[in-house]
Amino acid sequence: MNRPASKISDRETLINQLRDLLGERTSTSPSVLEQHGRGESWHPVQAPDAVCFAHSTEEVAAIVKLCAASATPVIAFGTGTSLEGQVQAVNGGICIDLSQMNQILEVNNEDMDCRVQAGVTRRELNQYLHDTGLFFPIDPGANTSIGGMTATRASGTNAVRYGTMRENVLGLTVVTANGDIIKTGTRARKSSAGYDLTRLFVGSEGTLGVITEISLRLHGLCESISAAIVNFPDVRSAAEATIMTIQMGIPVARIEILDSAYIKAINAYSKTDYPELDTLFLEFHGTSAGVAEQVQMFDEISQEFGATGFQWAEKEEDRKKLWRARHDAYYAGLAVHPGHRGYVTDVCVPISRLADCIAETQADIAASGLFAPVIGHVGDGNFHSTMFIDPDDDAMFEKALEVDRRMVQRAIDMGGTCTGEHGIGMGKLKHMRNEHGDGAVETMQAIKLALDPQNIMNPGKVVDC
Amino acid sequence: MNRPASKISDRETLINQLRDLLGERTSTSPSVLEQHGRGESWHPVQAPDAVCFAHSTEEVAAIVKLCAASATPVIAFGTGTSLEGQVQAVNGGICIDLSQMNQILEVNNEDMDCRVQAGVTRRELNQYLHDTGLFFPIDPGANTSIGGMTATRASGTNAVRYGTMRENVLGLTVVTANGDIIKTGTRARKSSAGYDLTRLFVGSEGTLGVITEISLRLHGLCESISAAIVNFPDVRSAAEATIMTIQMGIPVARIEILDSAYIKAINAYSKTDYPELDTLFLEFHGTSAGVAEQVQMFDEISQEFGATGFQWAEKEEDRKKLWRARHDAYYAGLAVHPGHRGYVTDVCVPISRLADCIAETQADIAASGLFAPVIGHVGDGNFHSTMFIDPDDDAMFEKALEVDRRMVQRAIDMGGTCTGEHGIGMGKLKHMRNEHGDGAVETMQAIKLALDPQNIMNPGKVVDC
Repeated sequence: MNRPASKISDRETLINQLRDLLGERTSTSPSVLEQHGRGESWHPVQAPDAVCFAHSTEEVAAIVKLCAASATPVIAFGTGTSLEGQVQAVNGGICIDLSQMNQILEVNNEDMDCRVQAGVTRRELNQYLHDTGLFFPIDPGANTSIGGMTATRASGTNAVRYGTMRENVLGLTVVTANGDIIKTGTRARKSSAGYDLTRLFVGSEGTLGVITEISLRLHGLCESISAAIVNFPDVRSAAEATIMTIQMGIPVARIEILDSAYIKAINAYSKTDYPELDTLFLEFHGTSAGVAEQVQMFDEISQEFGATGFQWAEKEEDRKKLWRARHDAYYAGLAVHPGHRGYVTDVCVPISRLADCIAETQADIAASGLFAPVIGHVGDGNFHSTMFIDPDDDAMFEKALEVDRRMVQRAIDMGGTCTGEHGIGMGKLKHMRNEHGDGAVETMQAIKLALDPQNIMNPGKVVDC
Repeated sequence: MNRPASKISDRETLINQLRDLLGERTSTSPSVLEQHGRGESWHPVQAPDAVCFAHSTEEVAAIVKLCAASATPVIAFGTGTSLEGQVQAVNGGICIDLSQMNQILEVNNEDMDCRVQAGVTRRELNQYLHDTGLFFPIDPGANTSIGGMTATRASGTNAVRYGTMRENVLGLTVVTANGDIIKTGTRARKSSAGYDLTRLFVGSEGTLGVITEISLRLHGLCESISAAIVNFPDVRSAAEATIMTIQMGIPVARIEILDSAYIKAINAYSKTDYPELDTLFLEFHGTSAGVAEQVQMFDEISQEFGATGFQWAEKEEDRKKLWRARHDAYYAGLAVHPGHRGYVTDVCVPISRLADCIAETQADIAASGLFAPVIGHVGDGNFHSTMFIDPDDDAMFEKALEVDRRMVQRAIDMGGTCTGEHGIGMGKLKHMRNEHGDGAVETMQAIKLALDPQNIMNPGKVVDC
């Protein structure tokens, strides 16, 4: 990367200051830099100049203040599981690794809320909550940090019933671009007191400030949980059964589509023997009577759309096995062609258009010749295509880019969004004006520049400045 | 009001331009100005210089462009039912009355969403939806406009189950401070595509732009609805029964507290004969079996807290009568001392602190000697005190101001917010730094100035600039 000599000397001075502040917790080891310059998708590594392992909000504020003084980029880093190039240091700069900020600061059982540091992962939180009767439902698959999930406005399998990070974050502690510490929100469930800063920072991908603490809503564990795998004659039937389930108001907790290609890969990878057909994975939460009622209603709907081969899992270990297989889908896909990488993209559409959007996308994938199974949180109208590509085959990569571009355009044309849950990062920046229009994008730019006039907070992501 | 002569002549020029644009739909009639300079609470009238009755987003944009050219304030107006001085023209300016923008633009039954112009009222929308099996649940009591509800982040009786405007707005059309038209959100149920402009405009009280169209989530009407009135020995018992109901995860649709003073006023005003005790009004929605289960669980909880005198209302007309009485509470309070005005304030706290917050507030009210019954959406931890005061009695007004100030401080000290649903307007501006801290308020100011550099959008509300 070409930088003027004066800038390099600035950056060396800064790194020395960060070493004074954090000692060995400021690293410039090449392997650490490399590891912090990438997520889990195809975007190439772009390493930062140094990585700081912060232990407190005050340390994050001190780091940002030092960076602000020399207009150096600041990139917050959780578990490195982002999919659209959110953590790449496109102009170099300082990566703040928050994984050691992993304290659960308070749990209020009566109010069903908690406050955690940004580096706590969702599994750590749920392990901590074990025996309280409460749980944190948002489940994007990977064992991501709560800070990263907040910054990406993540959701996942339970969102159809419990909402996304948008609905489940009560408040935040944020370090702003000038190194100030602000708090947003309260522990009240609702408020009309001024601009909704919480919702502005949720989904801002580190471009408006560094989220260091998060207050979350928790939910009560249900008396009864039942999970099922149901096969359908084709993806359209499965999608249409989903649409009717949602329209009937059945409060299904999870409803996930996996096409037959994914089931085949899972059977090979996870040593399961699911029928290799287009399939819904479901979970129902409620009282015993409530779950029985939901199951019966869903059963009637699915018969109408030609469902076969119900497999029920009521015991916890059977349910865990089922969801483990679902969550291992990505690794199962990777294992089909060893050496290939995953190119993951997601869109979300109004549910009435879901069957069309999936079917047209599948036809496009088939025409492209790519191996790209479809999986999705279809209860929200959200689905993913994971294209497994040879990293050395430029033509294959170009095909994947084109399938992605057309899938996004199809979703926007149907009244949907270019990403339901993976975020913009660098990967979907090019779709922002198409989805939102110039005026809304310029409004986002104005907000970005007002809160980060030097454009040092994760530059090159979400908005072009 | 003192203004430099040049400003007055500017404003006369502007009003002539607005007459050229809208003809008789630009009014300077004193009665029209007076009617547009006040809400429904104690805040004194501050009339605008002219009122424009807009028919389209394009007309609103043209009005704002003209105002922007002479840095003239712009105040959006729906039904004039705000409670914290949201529509007062503190620096004069142009009021845009949106009540004639009352078209329901689309209803998508399959996706359970709709798009309306800002002037559509919630009752108009629900009348239109009659026979579709869908409804719009947000119910703040008055027959408010959807635009005003969006701008205030309103909620009301059904929010405990269906959420507030924050959760139910999918997207917006907004006229910005320079007269541009932008669109926010999509029809997808979730998105991670950039900053959440929708949530930023929801609750911004017209200070960031004029909301002209709103896309809303709708909900399916339930198979079974049951309502009840239940008496408790005191407000604390009623609040504690509420807390346990929420903690047990009973999906109650409405759970409202009215203290004995309010019930007495209602009986006199609405010719009802409810036992004059501290009371919960409830509603349960679900399948027949689900409602029966909820009712049984609530029954057990309420017995534990000494409940007596259950009255059930299952027929639609009985339920309507019950909620009519609840919604008439304010007018019933006004009728106790004819000539008095209502001074309404609301706070919201974490539900574990609700019983304490109400009890301490009631003790404070009793010590003040004011007639100030308590009512609240207690399932959310939200309650109101309505102080009925003699508008000519300055000492009484000062007492009300002090009770309000202490109630807000109590809520903030308990981890809550200075307003759960009425908004900031002018009335609660003084509490913003106390609740949010300087840093968060300065962040709000930076956003305001970025989106409205001339400070013409409803100046003097929400943030001091």
